[in-house]
Amino acid sequence: MSEAPRVAIIMGSQSDWPTMERAAQMLDKLEIAYDARIVSAHRTPDRLVEFAKGAEADGFKVIIAGAGGAAHLPGMVAAMTHLPVLGVPVQSRALSGQDSLLSIVQMPAGIPVGTLAIGEAGAANAGLLAASILSTSDEALAGRLKALRAEQTASVAERPSST
Amino acid sequence: MSEAPRVAIIMGSQSDWPTMERAAQMLDKLEIAYDARIVSAHRTPDRLVEFAKGAEADGFKVIIAGAGGAAHLPGMVAAMTHLPVLGVPVQSRALSGQDSLLSIVQMPAGIPVGTLAIGEAGAANAGLLAASILSTSDEALAGRLKALRAEQTASVAERPSST
Amino acid sequence: MSEAPRVAIIMGSQSDWPTMERAAQMLDKLEIAYDARIVSAHRTPDRLVEFAKGAEADGFKVIIAGAGGAAHLPGMVAAMTHLPVLGVPVQSRALSGQDSLLSIVQMPAGIPVGTLAIGEAGAANAGLLAASILSTSDEALAGRLKALRAEQTASVAERPSST
Amino acid sequence: MSEAPRVAIIMGSQSDWPTMERAAQMLDKLEIAYDARIVSAHRTPDRLVEFAKGAEADGFKVIIAGAGGAAHLPGMVAAMTHLPVLGVPVQSRALSGQDSLLSIVQMPAGIPVGTLAIGEAGAANAGLLAASILSTSDEALAGRLKALRAEQTASVAERPSST
Amino acid sequence: MSEAPRVAIIMGSQSDWPTMERAAQMLDKLEIAYDARIVSAHRTPDRLVEFAKGAEADGFKVIIAGAGGAAHLPGMVAAMTHLPVLGVPVQSRALSGQDSLLSIVQMPAGIPVGTLAIGEAGAANAGLLAASILSTSDEALAGRLKALRAEQTASVAERPSST
Amino acid sequence: MSEAPRVAIIMGSQSDWPTMERAAQMLDKLEIAYDARIVSAHRTPDRLVEFAKGAEADGFKVIIAGAGGAAHLPGMVAAMTHLPVLGVPVQSRALSGQDSLLSIVQMPAGIPVGTLAIGEAGAANAGLLAASILSTSDEALAGRLKALRAEQTASVAERPSST
Amino acid sequence: MSEAPRVAIIMGSQSDWPTMERAAQMLDKLEIAYDARIVSAHRTPDRLVEFAKGAEADGFKVIIAGAGGAAHLPGMVAAMTHLPVLGVPVQSRALSGQDSLLSIVQMPAGIPVGTLAIGEAGAANAGLLAASILSTSDEALAGRLKALRAEQTASVAERPSST
Amino acid sequence: MSEAPRVAIIMGSQSDWPTMERAAQMLDKLEIAYDARIVSAHRTPDRLVEFAKGAEADGFKVIIAGAGGAAHLPGMVAAMTHLPVLGVPVQSRALSGQDSLLSIVQMPAGIPVGTLAIGEAGAANAGLLAASILSTSDEALAGRLKALRAEQTASVAERPSST
Repeated sequence: MSEAPRVAIIMGSQSDWPTMERAAQMLDKLEIAYDARIVSAHRTPDRLVEFAKGAEADGFKVIIAGAGGAAHLPGMVAAMTHLPVLGVPVQSRALSGQDSLLSIVQMPAGIPVGTLAIGEAGAANAGLLAASILSTSDEALAGRLKALRAEQTASVAERPSST
Repeated sequence: MSEAPRVAIIMGSQSDWPTMERAAQMLDKLEIAYDARIVSAHRTPDRLVEFAKGAEADGFKVIIAGAGGAAHLPGMVAAMTHLPVLGVPVQSRALSGQDSLLSIVQMPAGIPVGTLAIGEAGAANAGLLAASILSTSDEALAGRLKALRAEQTASVAERPSST
Repeated sequence: MSEAPRVAIIMGSQSDWPTMERAAQMLDKLEIAYDARIVSAHRTPDRLVEFAKGAEADGFKVIIAGAGGAAHLPGMVAAMTHLPVLGVPVQSRALSGQDSLLSIVQMPAGIPVGTLAIGEAGAANAGLLAASILSTSDEALAGRLKALRAEQTASVAERPSST
Repeated sequence: MSEAPRVAIIMGSQSDWPTMERAAQMLDKLEIAYDARIVSAHRTPDRLVEFAKGAEADGFKVIIAGAGGAAHLPGMVAAMTHLPVLGVPVQSRALSGQDSLLSIVQMPAGIPVGTLAIGEAGAANAGLLAASILSTSDEALAGRLKALRAEQTASVAERPSST
Repeated sequence: MSEAPRVAIIMGSQSDWPTMERAAQMLDKLEIAYDARIVSAHRTPDRLVEFAKGAEADGFKVIIAGAGGAAHLPGMVAAMTHLPVLGVPVQSRALSGQDSLLSIVQMPAGIPVGTLAIGEAGAANAGLLAASILSTSDEALAGRLKALRAEQTASVAERPSST
Repeated sequence: MSEAPRVAIIMGSQSDWPTMERAAQMLDKLEIAYDARIVSAHRTPDRLVEFAKGAEADGFKVIIAGAGGAAHLPGMVAAMTHLPVLGVPVQSRALSGQDSLLSIVQMPAGIPVGTLAIGEAGAANAGLLAASILSTSDEALAGRLKALRAEQTASVAERPSST
Repeated sequence: MSEAPRVAIIMGSQSDWPTMERAAQMLDKLEIAYDARIVSAHRTPDRLVEFAKGAEADGFKVIIAGAGGAAHLPGMVAAMTHLPVLGVPVQSRALSGQDSLLSIVQMPAGIPVGTLAIGEAGAANAGLLAASILSTSDEALAGRLKALRAEQTASVAERPSST
Repeated sequence: MSEAPRVAIIMGSQSDWPTMERAAQMLDKLEIAYDARIVSAHRTPDRLVEFAKGAEADGFKVIIAGAGGAAHLPGMVAAMTHLPVLGVPVQSRALSGQDSLLSIVQMPAGIPVGTLAIGEAGAANAGLLAASILSTSDEALAGRLKALRAEQTASVAERPSST
C-alpha cells in the first residue's frame, strides 16, 4: 500500500504477534494502511517515549497497543499522546489475561485507553474500532466498513449444523 | 451550545447519571456538544433500536454508553451502528462493576466496544476519548485537547502534603 | 415430530452448538418438539428483534438461549418477550465462562433470565427446566419427566469402581 | 387472596426476607397467590424434605428459593421435586454473594435451578419469572404480565435529570 | 479388613473417585477401615438422608464427602449428623473447583464442614485429618500417624535435582 | 472451669479476637474447656514453634487457629503437630478474606487443615467442629452437642416476619 | 535529616499519600533519610522518565513506588533503572486493589518489581524491605532493624482481651 | 564458583525446581554465587527454622523463596530473619497460582516479602532483583547488571515477524 499508514499497531513482544496479527488482517480487509512495530514498555522504554511523542507527527491517527500480564504499553502510550489509543489485553499464561485486562482498562481519569476483549477477538475488534474512528471523517472507508458489517451479518447461518 | 451534538451519551437508567455526568462535564470543558439520553437495553429495547439505527443520520459521530450489571447497552448499540461506541461499566452493588466490565468488554470479534474503567474515572475518560476521536479530523479541538492535557500535567504537585 | 415446537433453542453462533445440543437431546428424550436456530445478538440484531417479538405468535412457550463472552442474547430476548427465557453461559476461551455467566445472570430488576450452569451441564439442565415449566400444564409430560428423574436416580451406582 | 397459592417462596433464614420480600411484592402486583416460608437446608433438613416432596401435592406450580453463602436450599429442593425451581443468591457478607451465586447456579446435569441475579433485583425477577412460567397456561396472567412490562417501559424517562 | 469401618468416604458421582481415591489410599496406609460409597445429594437425595441419619448408628466416626460444582453433599450430610464431616472440593471443569470450594466451605454458623484443598491434595488430606481426629482417642493410631508424618519429613530431599 | 482445656484457640493478633470469640462462645455453651492465646506466625515465630510442638503434651486434643491475609498460622501449626487443626479465615480489609481463605485451605498433601467459612460464622463452626471431634470419644459431650443442634433446629421460625 | 536521602518514595497522586505515609513513618523510625514525591506515570510521564533515569545519580539506593488501579508507576520506573524498585498496590475504589496488585506484580521476565501487600500494610512493609535491603551493607542499620523486629515481637500480647 | 554464596534459593518441593531454576540461571548469568535447597515449610518445619535463623550467619545476603498453593515458605522465612526475602508464587494446578500469589504477597505489616510474578517470569525476576539488591553495594555487579539490561533492550526486534 502506498498510502501513509494511519494506524500504528504496537505490541510488547514478538510473542504478542499471533494475537495482534488479527488487527492487521482486519485493517488489510478494510484497506487501511498501518505500521506494525514491537515497542516494549519495559524493555525498550526509550523507544516507547520516542514512538508515543512522535506518533502524531508521523501521521498516525489511531494507535492500537497490545500487551499481556502487567500490561503497561497502552496506558503509557496514551500518557504521551492525545491520539486515540486502543488497548488489546493479550491472554497471559497463569491468569488467562485477567491481569492484562485490568492493567489496561483501569486507567485513572485523564488518560483514556479504549479497551477491547482479551485475545484474538479483541485484536480483530481493535482493527474494526480503528476503522470506525477513521470513518468518522472518511466516507469511503465508512462505506467499506458498512459493507463488511453487512457481509458479516449475511454470513450467519440460520440453523446450527452438526458435523 | 448551538452546534449540533456530535456525541451521544446514553445510559441504562437515571441511576447511572451520577457516573455518566462525568463524561458530560468533560465534553463541556472541551466545548463539544452532546446529547444525554436514557436508553435502557432491557426496559426500552425499541428505543434502543431506534436510537442505534438513527444515530448516524442524527449526526452523531461517537456514542458513549454506560450501564451496570449485565450491561448490554454498549454492545447492542454497537451491533446496530458502525459508529465508534465507547462503553462505561457502571459500578454495580454486589459485584462492584466486575459484572459490568466483563459484560461490556468481552465482545466477540466483529462488534467492537472501546471500554473504559469502571465508574466515574471511566466516564470522564469516555468523554476524553470521544474528544480524541473527534480531534482526528478537527484541529481546533485537537488544540483544546492538548491544552487540557497540558493543564492536567501542570496541576500535579511535586510533593505530597499531609493535612 | 409433527407437534408444533413449543421450545426455541437459540444460540449466538455455530460454535455454541456442541454445548447447546445437550439441551436438544434432553428435549428429544422427553418428546418435546423444539426449533434450534442461530440468532446472534451482535451480528444479526434484526433477526434477534424479529425472533423475540414473534416468539409468542410462533407458538413458543419457552426460550432457551445460549451465548458466550459478553453474552447479550438471553437478556435481549427477555427484553422483548414475556415468555420465560432460560440462559446458558457457554464456556469462553480466556475466562472459562465467568464472563458469560455474569453477562447472563446479573440482569436488572424487571427482565428475568433463568440462568443455568456454565457449559454442557447447563444446556442439559435448560432442556430439563423447559420441560419442567411445560409440565406445569401438561400432565403427560410431567409423567415423562418424573420417569426420567426416577431413572436418573436409579442409575447411580452404590459404590465407586476403579478401572 | 382466597386463591390457593401457586408459588412457594422459601428462604434459608429470617435474614433473607428483606431480599426475598421483593419476590413477594412482584407476585402481589401480578395478583398471584403465594406462600412464604423459612426452610433452612442446614438447620431444618427434615422440613426441607417434607416441603420439597410435598410441594406438588400442596398445589405449588413454581418454587422460588433464596439463600446465601454455601446456598444449598434451591438445589436440594430441586433434587426432590420436578417442579420448576428458581434460585435467588442472597448477597453474603464477606464475598458479596459470589459464593451464593456459584452454589446455586453450578448445578450438575440432571437437576436444574433457574438462577437469578444476586440480591434484590434477582428476587424481584424470580417473582417475574414465576409469573412468566405460570402465564404459559394462564392467559389472564399473561395479560397482566404484559401490562406490567409495558408500564415498566413507559416509566423510563427520556433524559437524565440532575438533582 | 475385618475391623468395622470407622470412616465413610462418600462422593457425588463415579467421576469423583479418581480424586477421592486419594483419601482411601491414605486411610489404607494408616490401617483405618473405611467404606466408600456414591451418594449424590442431587440425584439420590433419599440415599443422602438415609446415609446421613444412619451414619452414627452404622458406627462411622468421621465422614469424608467429596463433590464438585454446586457441591452440596458435604453440607447436607453435616446438616443431618453431629459427626465430624470433612469436605473435599473436587476440581470442576469450567471454574477449576472455585465453585466447589465456595459451595463447601461457606457454611452458615451452626453446621460445620471442615474443608480441605481443591482436588487430590485435599482428598489425601481428608484421609489424614480423619486419622488425626480418630487418633485423639486411639493411641496406636496416633503412633502410626506420627510415624507417617516423620517418614514424610524424612523423604524431602536436601537439594533440587535437574533431570 | 476446672477441667484441663482440651481445645486451644489461637489467633494471629488481638484484632482477630472479635471473630475468634465466637469459637470461644460456642465451646462455653458446650461446656468444653479451652485456652485462648495470641500466637503470631510472623511476629512471634518462636512462640508458634513452642506452642505447636508442645500442644499434645499440654493436653490439647484440637487446635483452632484463626488468621487473616497471608494467613500462615493454621498451616504452620499443622506442620508441627499431628493433632487436628481447624482454620478460620478472618475477613481481611482489602480482599474480604479471599486471601485468608486460600492461604489456609490450599494446603499441600501431607499437612491437613480443616477450614471453616470466612469470618464469624467460620469461627462459631470451628467451635462446633471441635466439639464434634471430641464427641467421637465423649458420649456426654455428644449428647450436649445433639441437644444444641436440636435446639437450633427448633429455633427456626416457620414464616418470615416483616418488621 | 541532614543525611542524603537513600530511599525515594514516589506515588501517582496526592490521594496515595495516606497509604504511602506508612512507608515514610517506617523509614523515620529506622532513621533512614528519604525523599517523597508525586510522580504520575500517566499525567507526568516526563517527570517519570527524568526521575527514573536520574535516580541513581541522585544517590537513591532503593525506590518505593505506590499506585492504584492500572498501576504503571512501579513497573515503568523499574524499566528505566537497575535500582531495586518496591511496588505498593494502593487500594482502589471499585476493585479494592486487585487491579493495582496485578498491574504491579505481573511484570514480564527482565524487569522486576518487588511487590508488597495491598494498602497500608504493604506501604509499611515497603519501608521495612527498603531498610532490609540497605542493611545488607550497613551494619548499624541492620542493628536498628533487628531491634525494631525484636520490639515488634515483644509487643505481642499473650492472650486476647475483650473490651 | 569458589565465592561464598550470597543468595539462597529455597523452594517447597522438587516440583518447584523447573520454575525456580530460572532464578538460578539469572544468577549464573550475573556471576552471583547461590545455594539452592529444598525447604518445605510444611513437611520440614525444623529445617525451615534452622535455615531461616542461620541464614545471616551462613553469609546469605538475599533469600529467594518459591512455593505454590498455600505458600507459607517465603513469609515464614521472613518472620525469622531480617534479610530481604523475595517470594516467587509457583503456578498451582487448580487455581493457576492465584492462591500462591495471595498467600505470599498479603503479608501483615511488620514482615515484608518482596513478591514477584507467578511462575517462571517471577523466578527470573527474583534473580534479577536479588542482583539489584546486591548491586547497591557492589559496583562491579552493578556494571554487569546494567550490561545485561542493555543487552536485553538491544535484543528487542523492531518489527514482528510471522513464521
